[in-house]
This record gives sequence, structure tokens and C-alpha cells, in this order.
Amino acid sequence: MLIVMKKQASAEEVRAVCEHIESLGLRPHPLPGAQRTAIGITGNQSTINQGTFEELSGVAEVIRVTKPYKLVSRDVKEDDTVIYFPGTNASIGGKNLAIMAGPCSIETREQAFAVAEQVAAAGAQFFRGGAYKPRTSPYAFQGLGEEALKIMVEIRDAFGLRIVTEALDHESLELVEKYADVIQIGARNMQNYTLLREAGRTRKPVLLKRGMASTLEELLMAAEYIMSEGNYQVILCERGIRTFVDHTRNTLDLSIVPAVQRLSHLPIIVDPSHGTGKRNKVVPLARAAVAVGADGLIIEVHHQPDKALSDGAQSIYPQQFAEMVGEVRQIARILHRDVPDGIQVEEVATLAKSK
Amino acid sequence: MLIVMKKQASAEEVRAVCEHIESLGLRPHPLPGAQRTAIGITGNQSTINQGTFEELSGVAEVIRVTKPYKLVSRDVKEDDTVIYFPGTNASIGGKNLAIMAGPCSIETREQAFAVAEQVAAAGAQFFRGGAYKPRTSPYAFQGLGEEALKIMVEIRDAFGLRIVTEALDHESLELVEKYADVIQIGARNMQNYTLLREAGRTRKPVLLKRGMASTLEELLMAAEYIMSEGNYQVILCERGIRTFVDHTRNTLDLSIVPAVQRLSHLPIIVDPSHGTGKRNKVVPLARAAVAVGADGLIIEVHHQPDKALSDGAQSIYPQQFAEMVGEVRQIARILHRDVPDGIQVEEVATLAKSK
Amino acid sequence: MLIVMKKQASAEEVRAVCEHIESLGLRPHPLPGAQRTAIGITGNQSTINQGTFEELSGVAEVIRVTKPYKLVSRDVKEDDTVIYFPGTNASIGGKNLAIMAGPCSIETREQAFAVAEQVAAAGAQFFRGGAYKPRTSPYAFQGLGEEALKIMVEIRDAFGLRIVTEALDHESLELVEKYADVIQIGARNMQNYTLLREAGRTRKPVLLKRGMASTLEELLMAAEYIMSEGNYQVILCERGIRTFVDHTRNTLDLSIVPAVQRLSHLPIIVDPSHGTGKRNKVVPLARAAVAVGADGLIIEVHHQPDKALSDGAQSIYPQQFAEMVGEVRQIARILHRDVPDGIQVEEVATLAKSK
Amino acid sequence: MLIVMKKQASAEEVRAVCEHIESLGLRPHPLPGAQRTAIGITGNQSTINQGTFEELSGVAEVIRVTKPYKLVSRDVKEDDTVIYFPGTNASIGGKNLAIMAGPCSIETREQAFAVAEQVAAAGAQFFRGGAYKPRTSPYAFQGLGEEALKIMVEIRDAFGLRIVTEALDHESLELVEKYADVIQIGARNMQNYTLLREAGRTRKPVLLKRGMASTLEELLMAAEYIMSEGNYQVILCERGIRTFVDHTRNTLDLSIVPAVQRLSHLPIIVDPSHGTGKRNKVVPLARAAVAVGADGLIIEVHHQPDKALSDGAQSIYPQQFAEMVGEVRQIARILHRDVPDGIQVEEVATLAKSK
Repeated sequence: MLIVMKKQASAEEVRAVCEHIESLGLRPHPLPGAQRTAIGITGNQSTINQGTFEELSGVAEVIRVTKPYKLVSRDVKEDDTVIYFPGTNASIGGKNLAIMAGPCSIETREQAFAVAEQVAAAGAQFFRGGAYKPRTSPYAFQGLGEEALKIMVEIRDAFGLRIVTEALDHESLELVEKYADVIQIGARNMQNYTLLREAGRTRKPVLLKRGMASTLEELLMAAEYIMSEGNYQVILCERGIRTFVDHTRNTLDLSIVPAVQRLSHLPIIVDPSHGTGKRNKVVPLARAAVAVGADGLIIEVHHQPDKALSDGAQSIYPQQFAEMVGEVRQIARILHRDVPDGIQVEEVATLAKSK
Repeated sequence: MLIVMKKQASAEEVRAVCEHIESLGLRPHPLPGAQRTAIGITGNQSTINQGTFEELSGVAEVIRVTKPYKLVSRDVKEDDTVIYFPGTNASIGGKNLAIMAGPCSIETREQAFAVAEQVAAAGAQFFRGGAYKPRTSPYAFQGLGEEALKIMVEIRDAFGLRIVTEALDHESLELVEKYADVIQIGARNMQNYTLLREAGRTRKPVLLKRGMASTLEELLMAAEYIMSEGNYQVILCERGIRTFVDHTRNTLDLSIVPAVQRLSHLPIIVDPSHGTGKRNKVVPLARAAVAVGADGLIIEVHHQPDKALSDGAQSIYPQQFAEMVGEVRQIARILHRDVPDGIQVEEVATLAKSK
Repeated sequence: MLIVMKKQASAEEVRAVCEHIESLGLRPHPLPGAQRTAIGITGNQSTINQGTFEELSGVAEVIRVTKPYKLVSRDVKEDDTVIYFPGTNASIGGKNLAIMAGPCSIETREQAFAVAEQVAAAGAQFFRGGAYKPRTSPYAFQGLGEEALKIMVEIRDAFGLRIVTEALDHESLELVEKYADVIQIGARNMQNYTLLREAGRTRKPVLLKRGMASTLEELLMAAEYIMSEGNYQVILCERGIRTFVDHTRNTLDLSIVPAVQRLSHLPIIVDPSHGTGKRNKVVPLARAAVAVGADGLIIEVHHQPDKALSDGAQSIYPQQFAEMVGEVRQIARILHRDVPDGIQVEEVATLAKSK
Repeated sequence: MLIVMKKQASAEEVRAVCEHIESLGLRPHPLPGAQRTAIGITGNQSTINQGTFEELSGVAEVIRVTKPYKLVSRDVKEDDTVIYFPGTNASIGGKNLAIMAGPCSIETREQAFAVAEQVAAAGAQFFRGGAYKPRTSPYAFQGLGEEALKIMVEIRDAFGLRIVTEALDHESLELVEKYADVIQIGARNMQNYTLLREAGRTRKPVLLKRGMASTLEELLMAAEYIMSEGNYQVILCERGIRTFVDHTRNTLDLSIVPAVQRLSHLPIIVDPSHGTGKRNKVVPLARAAVAVGADGLIIEVHHQPDKALSDGAQSIYPQQFAEMVGEVRQIARILHRDVPDGIQVEEVATLAKSK
């Protein structure tokens, strides 16, 4: 059920409705919009009398929601969700595209800094790097763990990049929340509901990747799990689905971008690196993702991809990344959006030295 | 097998090699490039002695081809194939994008002219319209047939648009070749090898749509069928594949565009109308298709989509189409390509009246 | 629209209703059932007055059909369609399973006879062999054509096997109808509507293979195309769909067997050879197909699979086939069906000699 | 790397090799076969000298393994893995099929006992019931948790059925290990590597369901995660994959059964309930699964499916289940396997009363 408050409803009136909801053993989710506030309700509502809410002061309308998703829906919150990172030019879901870049895995401090310096100069606002890697084989490189997280904190300090990295389980989630700025939930865990709920109890934005066989509704319901615990800062990510196609590792389904934007207020970005699995297809598909209207990109960049411990074949060179940012910035402007300039090279040098 | 001629080889030397090939009971396919000519050979070559060719005058190299496709391959012809339409600004595969637009089916002369006038003004160089419709149900509208072809000839005369329309079988192919400028082979017939061979014996360019479950190799081999009969003017078209996804009718696989461009010299365009099946997704995916590097677009446009006899739900309005052309023109320029301006409105009026 | 006649309606009453339908410019399709006759109507029925039919003598009920398929539906004909081959023990759709076996392609008279003798002895009632092959490559072996058809006629005469072979186009269809007992339409041509209509105008049973990306509804609609032309002897065939799976060439979708049997009166058989593409999986999946309730099997058998000109990797040995028939006969009996015994070896020898 | 011991190697020699492996910082996995023992090695083996092993007493051969899976492979262990449940007639992977049945969710003690009594009488040896449910919606019924586990312990005591139930995370895994006989890892968690490793550290057999978009290799690698922690009692389960097909909820890929049996020594069972999602298709596909060679079945049975809190549409009635067991027992015997008889009705009554 969804309570839509009047435009002129006061903060006190909103609070009173929330308290009434709690008194019924349910959970209120106030969602302020540009014009008015809506209050989503979660919990077992089978016995609620809709009429009692309509009588409360400041309430405009009570809507019974029939779609399985609630908090993710534009019905609940009309305006786009924008996630800001105070003190930076980074945001996700607003006018500026969010550009995330970095190596698949953090391998060494030197490797991470070498890549970070170049992606920062080219215009990335976020640094992505794996500390905990979900690998198909138990015998493959599993990531440096907390050591990688600490290296990324140094990178944030040196270059001002916000840090995005994946959490796999309870233990890694606690550390990722502690060190990073955005918690990534990978495609293989999109329906790991325990992990989604735990991410919903953190206070950091969550980047939720679409599972390889996930429908749009399942993706939105996975986001709903996170939001139902009170964390409304969710970013969706298309990273390719599994099909019969064999010229790419996965099939990037760009049509999900406008589909999400119709149904949900959450931002959606695209990962053309996993979405294609082939270096020579990353840049064309990155351009296409921006042209279709995505709110950002997440790209694997490695200064020596042939020596990468994971996913080298799909990592692009820093120089390719810089050219790509130039192209997508121009495409973004056609759609009345933008990509902020990168950090000046001298500035980067200063930052790096200042450490 | 492939004979690569020396740069300075004369037309006579090329002819002599071709005659030698024919004398062995095989078929030569001379493919002139910017720098030099290559000659593909088709037919059973198991008994050919490679050495004899290397001795012929003007021959630079003889290559045994192991990939199943030959004539479609960049190994055979390095330069992009560009298809020109003399006397018009239309071309496919060159610097200019090819924009094809029109209704799913030709329903009446009035409907066809109403749509044609507007797409011509907006910048389309090709008019697409169904005369013979492959319908899932034998009881659904099957198209106006030859009457529709004649209406499209009038449209060509009135607006200068080149005509693209589908042939389903021997009978319709003969008529489409007679009236139209580009023969379309639909997705359902991509492996109708008899029809492909017949299209290969025509002298009109063939627009070959990818089948719904077709791999890249199967698409290229279908083109090979056409080319093996001597018609080298083939345009490939991505129109969506069948996957588990349910938010669009098909899943548009844009990654096939750079994949084709690596392996083949043939142009490839994209059909976001069938690729999504939903009006609100056509324009975003059209932008993405141009951004990924496609050589053109084919779009369903109807002035009254809700009254269309077929595919109304995926047809866009003429006004949407005009805005789309404006956007894709800007994206094309970022990639150093272009979309020519449409016909001026007054000019269109004159053309239409002059009939 | 569907006219259901009363149980006691006379043949004359049925004929009178049919004539009335024809007088309206439509086509009647009388479908006799065990209890009563139904008459399907095809053609544009938008202007028909339902009431006039209800007044006709012998009419029990008039049903407006909303499903896109009509003649294939159990609503139109409740009893299973059984196709008999007079003078033989072969039938399709009845109590006995139909077992079809033979090489992918007819290569030589010797090869065809060697395989036919062994599959006849093992219990096959049908001999399958390719005369016209739809090959992915224009340069691959395309079949022996009419020569192969004549060899198969000899096999029918020698062993009493009914002949099943594929038609690709107008020309081959005419010859296949002339020589063979069952006309096969391949998966690639499942939506070649011109070919389906032509097959609908023949008087031989049609074996219609499911396309690789075909839904159940599309398969039934393809059958509807054939039936709408007056040929009601259609056999459906599951032969694997295209999925992401890579341990088999296609994914055999056995669940379509009970799904078809609920909706349609047409028989459905299974092709585990194309459905798996691997010799070691053919027999297990053949057993499964019979256990799920299929009306028959079509199996590729070759006496020297490693020398086969096509599909050798999925052809089983005659000895494997014989063991398979033994197993599926036992499974069939659990489901109250059966597989007739094969021809005795001496009898085969006599038959072969008598030629 | 894999150490194959000589046939006559003593237990001491095996132990000595294991100790040598451990002294190198690696982990030995002794896998006794009918004829001889093989010892798998896991851990980073890049620096191992193959020669030193060949010198050790009792070693026959040292094999460098190139496939990504090791412990799951028939190369490591030639004989089928059979999992026994001492004191019962239940086993998985041997001559007898394992029949698991029960409701999707444990809803009440009454419901669970009603179903258990009937499936025990019909021949099930295992009772399946959900205590922790992975639901697409956070607002759907999530299972009774530990209360459900305690009810299932009562059922084991009353009817002698072994208990199979799903663990979702660390917390539920501890409780499931404590109460149940077989720990199920669901399809959505097939690549939840943290959970797989934890399951590998338990001492109970693990039933691992194939993910909806999982390849054969990914399924085997998920099993490898469990085995690499020392738990070798893994049962694989096919439960349907996601495809474009819309006549069933998933597409049951029965061909994976013979594919697994070629590559791996692990048993594989089939779940036709989730594999089809439709009651009327469960029994036919169960028969097919046994005919293809599966080692068992897991079936949802509910005495009042229309009142079930989850998955009612795919649950069959107890009477259908009893008939199904009768049919699959006959099919099993054709393949020289069997299904033991169920508990006699009087016996069940006594057991139930004795509680």
C-alpha cells in the first residue's frame, strides 16, 4: 500500500502517518519527491483498513499496489533517484553520467595506482577494483581481500575517486562497507537474498548487477529486497545476459535501460566489459549504452591487460578509455547530459606525490 | 581458395585467371578492392593444384581458406562494400548512414503517401513497406501484393526514395526484383536456401535479416549463399534475437555490428522496430545502433499506428521519426559519418503535386 | 468459427452446412470425430452472422474461436488424429509408436540398402533419408536429389518401409510428393509459409519439424497453415531448440510433447539425433521421448557413421538402434502402447533378393 | 595434479603420499575406487615438481589435470559415487533410484504429516520440505525456519524418511546440518561460493541444484567448490534452465544427465516440478527423467495444492505421485535399476501412532 501525502503536508503530518503505520506492526518508508512525499508500506498488510489512512491529516490518496515491486516503482516515487557523493563532482542518476573504471582485480599497489591515475585524468569519478572475486574455479585467484580495500582507500585519498568494489558475503560486506563508497553485489549473487538484506541494512549505496538469466521483474525485486530494509540508494547495472550467441561472452541487453526508466526511479548503468567479454567490442557498446540513455558506465581498464590475473581479454587500455570518454561525453551532450572533465594531469601528479 | 592479384595486375590478367578457373569446372568471383583485385573460387576444389595458379601472370598470392565463409570475408575483400544508387544521395555502407523508413504494410495509396512524404522530409533515403507479409497466422492480413509494389513505384517517382520490400518466394521475388530497388529477405527465410540462391541470381541489392536464433556464422553463411550465385550487393540486418527476456519482443544484439565489421566487408544495418517490438524503445535503440557503428537503420513509421493492419505497437509517429533522425545525425558526426538532409517540405509538396 | 454438429446429424446435413459456408465465400473443413462431426471455417469471417448457422439442420452449437489456431485444436477435433498407411503395419498417432530411421543423406544405393535392411529388421516402419539437404554452407554436399528418391522407392519395394524425406522448395516438393510417403518440412522452413501452403495442397502426410526458436504457438500455427489448405495429415516433430547450453548441439524440449497433446489432436514425434547432436546421447533421449509420451521417434542410423557425408557425429550404429528399439518397446508397453516387431531376417533377405 | 596409486598400494603408502602433499602446503584428497586409490591435490601447484611424486612408494602415475574440474571428474575417480544412509533402504547413485517427495514449504505439522504419510507409503525414501524459502519477493512467505526443521525430524522418526531441505546462508546452513540428512543448495545459490565452501565443511551430503543459466562446466565447478573443502558427498540436480519457451516455467534439460555421467562420478537426479512448473507435466517428465538414466527424482507433492503457500501450481496430488512411482519403477527395471517398495499402510499407521 502507498500513502500519497498532499503537496502542502507538513513534516509533522508525515511523521504522524509513519507512526500510525508502525503502530500496526508495519514498516513505513517515507520517500520525499520534488512536489510531495509518498510513504510506502511494507509488511503483511492483509488486515489493513484502507479507510483509516484516508482519514489521517495531510493524506491525499491511498493506493493499493498490485505490482510485486513497490519501493523501486515510479508509482511510489515519481522523480529520478540521484545519489550524491558530497565533496566530489560524482553523482549517479542526475545530469552527469557516472563513469566507473579500473582493473578487474586489485593485484598490487603499483598496478592499482597506475590504472587509477590514468582513469582519473580521463574523466572517471569512480574507481572500481576487485578485492573479493567470485571465480568459477575454487583454484583461481580469489582477490587480495582487505589488503586490496586498503589500497583503494589510498587511491581515493590520492585522486579523489570514489571506490566501488564487490562484497560476496557477510564478512566481506562488513569490510567493503567500512572502506568503500559503493557496495557492489555481483550478478551471481543477484538472488542471494540474505546478502541483499544485509546490504539493505548498510548505509552505503549499493550497485546491483543483473543476473545472467534475470528478467526485468526479478532485477527490480532484488532491488526491492535491499530497499525493504531501508537502504534506498540502489543503482542497477546491466552486464549482459546468457543467450545462444557465441560472438560475445554475454549478450548486452540495452533495451532494459529504457524499460527500467519507465518503471523505476532508480538509476541504471551499463557494464560493456562483462557484457561483451571482448576488448574490441567494449568501446562501441559503451557508446551505445550512453546513446540509449544509461546513467553511467562501469569499465574494466588495465595498463597491461595481457598480464592481468583475471578478465584480461575484456580490459581496455587506458588510452582507449580516454578516447572512449571523449566520445561518450559528446553523445551525452546530445541527450542534454554531460561527463565532467577529468582531473588535470599536473593535478594528478601533485595528488599522487602528496601521499 | 582465393587468388590475390598483384596491385599492378591488368584487367586482362584478371580475366585470364577467371577463365582458367572456369576451365576447371569452378566459378570465379572477381572482387575489386581499392588497391588490388582478389578472385574467390567456389565449387568443389578438392582436386585443385594450388601451384598452377601461382604461376599465372599477375597473381600475387594463393590462399587456402579454412573458414566456412569465403566471399563475405574481409580476407577476400579488405575494403568495405558500399552500395550506391545512381542518381540519388542514397548509399549503404559508406560515409552516409542509410535511413530506411515506412509502414509495416502498404495498406492504401493514401496511407503510403502520407508516411512517405513525412519520412522523406525528415531525411530517409529509402522507403520500406510490406507488399507480401509473412504472418504467423494463415488468417491474418497477408499484404496487397503487386498492388503495393505499384504504389511504391509511385512513391519513388514522387519523392525520390529508393524502395525496400520483402520477397517471400519465387513468385514474389520476381515481382520485387522488377519493381523495387532493394530486395528484403526476412528473418524467417534466412535459411531458406532456395530463396537465397534465387536472390543471388537477381541484379538488385539484397537486404538479409538475421534469423531469430541465428549465430553470426550462420548469418554470414546465408549471405555467402547469395554471393555464391554472383550477387555481391548484400546488406546484413540485425533485428533482434529470441531470448528469455520478456520486456521486449526480441533482444536486440548490437554487439553483432562490430563483430560483423571485423569479419566481413558487407554493410550491416539495424532494425530497432522488430528488435524491441515497443514504440517507446525504438528511438533509444536507434540512437544506440548508430553509436555502436551501424551503417544504417530501418524503422517502422505509421501516421496512425493504432489503425495499422500489422505491427502498430512498434511503429513510431512521423514526428518521433523526425526527431530521431536529428539525434542520430549528431551521433553519426561524432563517428565521422553523416545523415544527409531530408527533402525540403516545399520540394516534397511540388513532387507530390507533380504526380 | 466452428460449427459443432449434433451426434445424430446425417452426412447430408453436414454437406448442407458445408455448402452454406461455401456460398458465403468461406472454406469449410469437416472434421469427423468418434462421436460427432465438427466443421471448422476459414477465411474472413468478420461479416458472418452466427445466428444463421444455429438455425441450420443438424447443428448443435456454434463456437467463436479466440485462439489463433483452429484446425489444429482439440476444440475442433477431440479425438487424436491417427495417420494410417494402408497395406502396412505403420501408423502415426495411434497405439503403436512410429519408428523412423535411416541415414542423414542418401549417399549411394549400397549405403541406403545396408542401413534399411538393418533398421527394418530392428522394427522401424519408416525409412528416412535425405535427398535434398538444407546445408549451412553453399559449398557442402547438397544431396543426390531425384536419384536418392528413386533409391528410396526401391527400399520401399524391398523392405516394406514407408519413405520419409525432406522437401525444400516448390521443385523438390513436387518430386517428394511423387515418390515418398511422408513429406518432411525441416526446422529451417517451419515458417516458410509458401512451402507450408504448398504442402497443404498435397495429399501426402506432412512431418513438420519445430523451428529452433519456435514457441509452441508458432509450431501449431505452422501446422495450421498446412491444414488451412485442406491437408489434415500433419505430424509435429520436436528436434531441439537453441539455448545457451553447450554440451549438446540443441536442447531437446521434451515438455512440448504433453503440451501439444493437451492443445492439439495432432501426433507428435521426437528426433533425438538432431536434438542432441551427439551419438552417445541419442539412445538415452530416445528412451526419455517415449517415456514422456511421444507418438514416435525419428533416428539417424548409419552403418559407417565416420564416413557419412553429413551428420556422422550424431548417427548411431544399426546395433545400437536395435537395442534402442528393444528398450523403447518395453517403455511403450508400460504406457499401454507398443512397437510392432521388425521384419524377420530371413524375410528381409527374401525381400531384398526378390528385387 | 592427480596421483594414481598402484592397485596393491597399502593404506600406509596412501597416507605417506598425503602427508608429503600437506608438507608442501597443499591439500590431499584421497578417493578410494573399486580397484585403486587416486589422490587429488588442490591448492597452488605451480611450483610442484611432478618427479618427486613419481618416486614415492606405491605411486603408479602422476597426471597433470588440464580440465578446470578435478575432484568431480571420472579421471580422478572412475567408479560411481554412491551415498548411503545407514539403517535405511535409502541410497543415492547406486542401483536403487532415490525418490524424494514432499511439499514446497512446510506450512503446518498437520500438512507435513499428511503428505509424508502418503509419499512414504508410495515409495519415497526421502522427505523434502522447505524451511527457508528463497522467494522473489521480500514480502512473500519465507518459510517457518527452525520450527519446520523440527517438524521434519518428527517425520523422520515417524516414517523413516531421510530429510532433504534447503539452506540459504550461514545461519540456516548450521541448522539444516544439525537437523536434516541432506543439505540442499538451491539454483539461485549455485554460484554463491561462500555458501558452497561452507557446505563443503559440513559432514552431510549436499544436493546441489543447477542454476537457471548454468552450463555443465559451471555446475561441475560448483560441485568442485564443495568437494575442495573435503565433503565428497555431492548430488547434482537438474531443475530446468531458462529459455525462450513459454509453455513451461523452465525448460528441463534431460540431456545433462548422460553428459554428467560421462564426465563425473557424482550422482545426478532430476526435479520435474520446478523443471516444468505445471502439474500436468510433472509425471510425464518424471518418467522421462528415469528413462534417460537419472539416479533419482525430487517431486513436489501436496495434499491440497490449491491451498499451498508456495508453488501450488506445480505440486502433484499424493495419488498422482503413487501412480508415478509405479510407472518409474517399471521403467527403472528396464534399465536394470529399481525403486524399493514403500512402507506398508498398516506399518505407517503404527509408526505414526507410536509417536
